[in-house]
Amino acid sequence: MADYSIGVDLGGTNLRAAAITSSGEILDKISGATNLDAGRDAVLQDIVDNIVRLRQRHGSSGFAGAGLGVAGFIRIREGIVVGSNNMPALEGVRVRDEIENRLGAKVILENDANAAALGEKWIGAGKDVNDLVLLTLGTGIGGGIISRGRVLHGHVGMAGEIGHMTVVTNGNPCGCGNHGCLEKHASATAVEGMAYIMSLGENLSAKDICEMAAAGDERARTVYARMGATLGIAMANLVNLFNFPLYLLSGGMLPAWEFFAPAMFAEVELRSFTYRHAKTRIEKAILGNEAGLYGAAYLPFQAHSTES
Amino acid sequence: MADYSIGVDLGGTNLRAAAITSSGEILDKISGATNLDAGRDAVLQDIVDNIVRLRQRHGSSGFAGAGLGVAGFIRIREGIVVGSNNMPALEGVRVRDEIENRLGAKVILENDANAAALGEKWIGAGKDVNDLVLLTLGTGIGGGIISRGRVLHGHVGMAGEIGHMTVVTNGNPCGCGNHGCLEKHASATAVEGMAYIMSLGENLSAKDICEMAAAGDERARTVYARMGATLGIAMANLVNLFNFPLYLLSGGMLPAWEFFAPAMFAEVELRSFTYRHAKTRIEKAILGNEAGLYGAAYLPFQAHSTES
Repeated sequence: MADYSIGVDLGGTNLRAAAITSSGEILDKISGATNLDAGRDAVLQDIVDNIVRLRQRHGSSGFAGAGLGVAGFIRIREGIVVGSNNMPALEGVRVRDEIENRLGAKVILENDANAAALGEKWIGAGKDVNDLVLLTLGTGIGGGIISRGRVLHGHVGMAGEIGHMTVVTNGNPCGCGNHGCLEKHASATAVEGMAYIMSLGENLSAKDICEMAAAGDERARTVYARMGATLGIAMANLVNLFNFPLYLLSGGMLPAWEFFAPAMFAEVELRSFTYRHAKTRIEKAILGNEAGLYGAAYLPFQAHSTES
Repeated sequence: MADYSIGVDLGGTNLRAAAITSSGEILDKISGATNLDAGRDAVLQDIVDNIVRLRQRHGSSGFAGAGLGVAGFIRIREGIVVGSNNMPALEGVRVRDEIENRLGAKVILENDANAAALGEKWIGAGKDVNDLVLLTLGTGIGGGIISRGRVLHGHVGMAGEIGHMTVVTNGNPCGCGNHGCLEKHASATAVEGMAYIMSLGENLSAKDICEMAAAGDERARTVYARMGATLGIAMANLVNLFNFPLYLLSGGMLPAWEFFAPAMFAEVELRSFTYRHAKTRIEKAILGNEAGLYGAAYLPFQAHSTES
């Protein structure tokens, strides 16, 4: 039985890694910047160095393996990052093999939102269920679907792109080619865009707008209510499709919960027969930024338990 | 090893039953009207009588069990029909237990679209894959999701309600409480409604409108193109969520394929990054009305194979 694994979370801004025991205790953590300017080789080497450093500190004997969560579309079998808005330098790169070769050990690649969903299932808000959907509400919107205890990958590994669900038929254009995508109407960026359109102020961040809402600004509240209502359309669609017991929301938008959640719940109530007839929880995730690290670290444990 | 099972398909209009071997050969079939006017007891007894008749003809020794597909929302563990637009008399009825008690044998209850999806997976257009989504395009729109070879039920059994996905933000009202549901914009009823709004003629059926389109009527073609484009929004959402290799369309609308499919494919192409980057088939189902019978008959075989 393995003692610990190493989870790595590679985002456009931060590269983090943690050694985590099979019972979910974080032994050690490394955090730094993702050095995209230095090029893809440097980024890959940083990942490897972090894993090696943690493994040296905690020993090879109890090492179960490493999992890597990456912000991007992934071809899961080949271990390739197909597309990444935040890290175009990684597009088309065989990230898994590159790291395995340098490391001399197996690595499991996963999408970052999938990893976060798995982390919440393992040791967070979803530990009492086998099926859940998690949405990460940040600059963009990511999604992870856990079905029968495992990440739902689809045949290539691109499942769970909830941020690109059409929720506004003739809505805002999206870089994915679609328009009206959830992430163009309910992300931090979307909130900022609505504030701009509403002339709420110059260069306001979603956090600023949340503070304005907290201070009683009606227009800021309207922006969040609209964001919540649109999010509610997506949540209703998910409930109608999956009928899972639990849907989790995470990410940088959570502090604005009180301003978007009422409109979201009203919309789900209206739009989902299933929500009204089957006990369904829509809740905040609880692991915050650590969810992805936990999920990435859980991947080798889960692989072991499947093999045995 | 069981020789045959009995599949039953209970719809608002027809009650059908078939004895089917474990290799998918139909031995025998019974077809009749669903006698809703006679009340729920009569309907339940008709189901039991059909099963008994087939079992008498083909013997008890090789009988693997019976599966029943019903048009309605089902609580799968309790075997209860929660809601059924076509058969309100069955709402709240413990259909599974009622039939098991009268029959003296186990019965597996399933939603009719789920059964059709499972039938296509077993012996139809999906037999080469483990994951697929099926939509039944008829008076309404039903959905069935097959994940890892099995029906995705959700925790209550209501998963797969694709017909109630919001596809038009401020669209047509639906009996489920939502508005803009797929089935209010892409079903036969929706096509008929659009033809009415366009003043194409009195009391036109979707079939009439299809014939007009075939004869070159531009407005009839526009109606089907609009239906196809809206269907395409839903298909793109499904591809983005599931990244499955196969999506099947079935039901009474299939003869209009040439009039709605081009607009559907154009919309999916536009709206799904995953569709453009991962090989994805959207195709006609091949079992027609028999899909639900096959799927219902497969349920006892699948239950046996899980137990063993």
